[in-house]
Amino acid sequence: MSELLDKLEWRYAAKKMNPAKAVPQDKVDRIVEAARLAPTSSGLQPFELIVVTSQAVREQIKPIAWNQGQITDGSHLLVFAAWDNYTPERINAMFDLTNAQRGGTNPGWEAYRQKLLAAYPPRDAQVNFEHAARQAYIALGAALIAAAFEEVDATPMEGFDPDALDKILDLKARGLRSVAIVPLGYRQADQDWLVNLKKVRRPREQFVTEVK
Amino acid sequence: MSELLDKLEWRYAAKKMNPAKAVPQDKVDRIVEAARLAPTSSGLQPFELIVVTSQAVREQIKPIAWNQGQITDGSHLLVFAAWDNYTPERINAMFDLTNAQRGGTNPGWEAYRQKLLAAYPPRDAQVNFEHAARQAYIALGAALIAAAFEEVDATPMEGFDPDALDKILDLKARGLRSVAIVPLGYRQADQDWLVNLKKVRRPREQFVTEVK
Repeated sequence: MSELLDKLEWRYAAKKMNPAKAVPQDKVDRIVEAARLAPTSSGLQPFELIVVTSQAVREQIKPIAWNQGQITDGSHLLVFAAWDNYTPERINAMFDLTNAQRGGTNPGWEAYRQKLLAAYPPRDAQVNFEHAARQAYIALGAALIAAAFEEVDATPMEGFDPDALDKILDLKARGLRSVAIVPLGYRQADQDWLVNLKKVRRPREQFVTEVK
Repeated sequence: MSELLDKLEWRYAAKKMNPAKAVPQDKVDRIVEAARLAPTSSGLQPFELIVVTSQAVREQIKPIAWNQGQITDGSHLLVFAAWDNYTPERINAMFDLTNAQRGGTNPGWEAYRQKLLAAYPPRDAQVNFEHAARQAYIALGAALIAAAFEEVDATPMEGFDPDALDKILDLKARGLRSVAIVPLGYRQADQDWLVNLKKVRRPREQFVTEVK
């Protein structure tokens, strides 16, 4: 076993969080940083993260998310919101940022920019959104692992009305669509039906095939 | 900085791998295990992992993946393949496995099974596939982080023809569709144009919004 596998075994989707125990900001910062550093296709990072601490806003979100208590019992709610489309502006912004940070460019890199500009913006917006959403899920994985390293409980949720959440957070105007939410907090073990149940995964032989 | 953030900073998408240096099997096993332990929606794990070591098969894959050299220069190729659809059989198999491993069931859990059975299989197969693909990307994130912990280079790739790859690996017959591939190997630094370039990510203020 490695430390990472230990952390993956430790984590679970806490069903009851302790409303009296807030996650320290430095831990939240490192969890967000892991999401920011996560790799994405062509390095475009086609999503944003919204960190909701406002109790009032989380009270608004809870009823459009099956009233899951962790949304208000946790101290922070991460909202992963994917780009609704790939536009030339968004693609150029990442290439320009890269050139600025690396202090120059080269023909191969600029040809790659032109390739993406020719390929992505003409595609159907839904296809582009789905592609962006997948990238957000790489960062979701990174954030969940980061939470485990911080010994913070994190419960990934898709059980919410994305359109309603987009309205609450005014995401549409920013060209974003929410794809997953993650309350951060601390388990209240004595009230959590899941905490003592075995983590179940398909056995390796049903999950992996080797082609030798 | 935490150890996890160090690993995320260390990793990059190696562009040239050393064909003379194979990744030890115990490291590959831990990378695969991280993908297997990754959380997924409702715990369904709607994907499989194919680990290709066969040089002949990787030679076949390379031309349908823009001739990216890491596919054959690395020692292992991970193929993430998502379920092409959610079927009652697949959903029931995970609930039955969970009950078997936990030694029983309860009405809430069985109601949840019925809810998924009512919601997923009637949906359009493409919608279900896209949902499954997102879950595979959580595991992709976990595998990339695990590789970094093992100090193994891992280059996630979407630049391949998924239909052609599905044919090579006969995935369609298994109800799977390839979504991402990841060669594992060791960087050949003196021939890698990317290795010394700065990792670029959007600055935090363009990536995170706080709602207080």
